[in-house]
Amino acid sequence: MIGPDKKTGTDGDVPDASSDAATDASYMQMALREAHKALAADEVPVGAVIVHEGRVVARAHNQREMLKDPTAHAEMIALTQASAAIENWRLTGATLYVTLEPCLMCAGALVNARISRVVFGARDEKAGACGSLYQVGRDARLNHKFAVVGGVLEAECAAVLVDFFTQKRP
Amino acid sequence: MIGPDKKTGTDGDVPDASSDAATDASYMQMALREAHKALAADEVPVGAVIVHEGRVVARAHNQREMLKDPTAHAEMIALTQASAAIENWRLTGATLYVTLEPCLMCAGALVNARISRVVFGARDEKAGACGSLYQVGRDARLNHKFAVVGGVLEAECAAVLVDFFTQKRP
Repeated sequence: MIGPDKKTGTDGDVPDASSDAATDASYMQMALREAHKALAADEVPVGAVIVHEGRVVARAHNQREMLKDPTAHAEMIALTQASAAIENWRLTGATLYVTLEPCLMCAGALVNARISRVVFGARDEKAGACGSLYQVGRDARLNHKFAVVGGVLEAECAAVLVDFFTQKRP
Repeated sequence: MIGPDKKTGTDGDVPDASSDAATDASYMQMALREAHKALAADEVPVGAVIVHEGRVVARAHNQREMLKDPTAHAEMIALTQASAAIENWRLTGATLYVTLEPCLMCAGALVNARISRVVFGARDEKAGACGSLYQVGRDARLNHKFAVVGGVLEAECAAVLVDFFTQKRP
């Protein structure tokens, strides 16, 4: 499910919602705290944060089991929160930070939301849609593209998932 | 955006949640009534219905503008409703009826929800992920596959979309 990410980098052909490595790590740390909230609730520990115009407009963690909702991934809840916060479903200029590479559902939602940039921690080799199985953000046939940076705080983001799955499947 | 669907048929290699053409048309008619509710609310007119063990467990229409939420497609709202109705995020055995071919977000959500069968009306050549741009339900790398039937009440499903977009972009 998770492993080192070597292939994913910033897409050169997508407008860059610029940031620096220290800022990225700082917001990823915030997403990791959300992942730990999921872990405490016995959910697959994934956390997400959305930053728009320098302001955190969403913080969420996976709540699939608690809500009994297959759509309740951290990224989806964060997108709904962010859109409510800025009163617009178009999140142009915003960056999503998430501890695990987004799946197809979430990557498709990021296109629909017109997000500008996605920063993820651990790579998801089995279901990832931002570099692993699919590269949704780079598909020129869709009506929106987004930049992707992978591997930020990768070890920490992977560790919390490994802890969870080790406990579940000893 | 929409057009005749000739390529999509039931996937032979996916377990069939069997139904007949008259039943499919009947549930698609119900989805069409949902699409007309969206049209009345000045939303892109797409409607969806989910049937589980012979019972309608969700009826929804696109509410993206009203909710200011990029994730509020008809299919997503229906998935959340259906999971709440059966108190389980796994919708194994269920069929989704939707008036327009699902996008990547919705197709990914259908995988996550373990839906068994998807029946759609109009094809979406620009964003469809169940036969047009992607064939998500047939991707053997993912942990779930689903059967797809396209083109049910296609003319009616397309007509309501054409009406909407003709009014918007005269």
